Amino acid sequence: MLEPLPEKTVERLSQYRRVLLNYQYVQNSYIFSHVLARILKINSATVRRDLMLIGVEGDLHKGYDIGYLIQEIGKAIDSREAKKVCFVGIGEFGKTVAEYFHAMESKLIIAANFYFDGHKAVIRSDVPSYPLSRISEIVSQENITICVLAVPNEFAHDISTILIHAGIRGILNFSSAFLQLPPTVYVENYDMITKLEKIAYFVKDDA
Amino acid sequence: MLEPLPEKTVERLSQYRRVLLNYQYVQNSYIFSHVLARILKINSATVRRDLMLIGVEGDLHKGYDIGYLIQEIGKAIDSREAKKVCFVGIGEFGKTVAEYFHAMESKLIIAANFYFDGHKAVIRSDVPSYPLSRISEIVSQENITICVLAVPNEFAHDISTILIHAGIRGILNFSSAFLQLPPTVYVENYDMITKLEKIAYFVKDDA
Repeated sequence: MLEPLPEKTVERLSQYRRVLLNYQYVQNSYIFSHVLARILKINSATVRRDLMLIGVEGDLHKGYDIGYLIQEIGKAIDSREAKKVCFVGIGEFGKTVAEYFHAMESKLIIAANFYFDGHKAVIRSDVPSYPLSRISEIVSQENITICVLAVPNEFAHDISTILIHAGIRGILNFSSAFLQLPPTVYVENYDMITKLEKIAYFVKDDA
Repeated sequence: MLEPLPEKTVERLSQYRRVLLNYQYVQNSYIFSHVLARILKINSATVRRDLMLIGVEGDLHKGYDIGYLIQEIGKAIDSREAKKVCFVGIGEFGKTVAEYFHAMESKLIIAANFYFDGHKAVIRSDVPSYPLSRISEIVSQENITICVLAVPNEFAHDISTILIHAGIRGILNFSSAFLQLPPTVYVENYDMITKLEKIAYFVKDDA
């Protein structure tokens, strides 16, 4: 078994794959690291190092074989078994993400959407929507292990506790609450308030 | 005029403030850097360095005065003039954020919400919702300068171009499109697909 890849490398590999999936239809079948780097606004040495970590080397004159690279990235970062994901409180915002995973026949399956306050958002016609009251039952029954949590801060802690009891092992937390969860749960926080305050800081006052 | 703060410092100052705003009601009026650090899972030396950058020093025995710290963070990162923000395609997901800025009487004002596909999400009763067709007119008329963009990838480039012509200078991009925008526009990308693939990688296959 290989050592786990660094977090940032996993993120970039996911992004490389997304670029490559677009690129393969419009260009030829090879790509240079500096082209990938330019699209993603990173350093081309970083691209080469990441790809070396998954055992892929480019051809000096042609670059990387796009089809092969997509396949090797999949081997490196995708789960061997399908994993189910649920959305909680995310509404229409989840549509694009659901479309992507469906279109690429990903091992990540958007299996359920939970709503509260009565608005039953439709993510995709084949993704069932449930009221929040059924979350514990559905998550455990469907073996859902990953959750995108976008609920008001005051509910975030209680709902995440319920989710973990039901079998959730990874959370993408969109609430601005600072969740204190067991170390066995992998949490990725996204704090939109912070990002907006940062943008406001860097957007100059009236020019 | 001071030098601009580093991006990460601005982000952390925003987070410190959020912790402090909660903390001031339930605890006493001082806080130590290591307490802030523990809540945010960072290093306490980082906290002290960030606060030194905005000219605040703690008392060795009591820590930092919470009220004063909240005030100084505001002076350091908030705009002098109010800035207006619009949401595009974000739906109910924007509610919590709108509530926060409203409750803290922030200089960031959520001024409009745009929807497409006919579903008129209500963010707050005082935030008007418009169909996407009116985006150019409303953004320029209301002097909106910051936008949270959560539209399907295939529309992201065109809509961002319209927004920039209408006066938008900062974008929080939730689409997974890699936008190529003029350098005068401050863009912060958030790529949910990447984050989900990363979580799936770090959540172990069935234990």
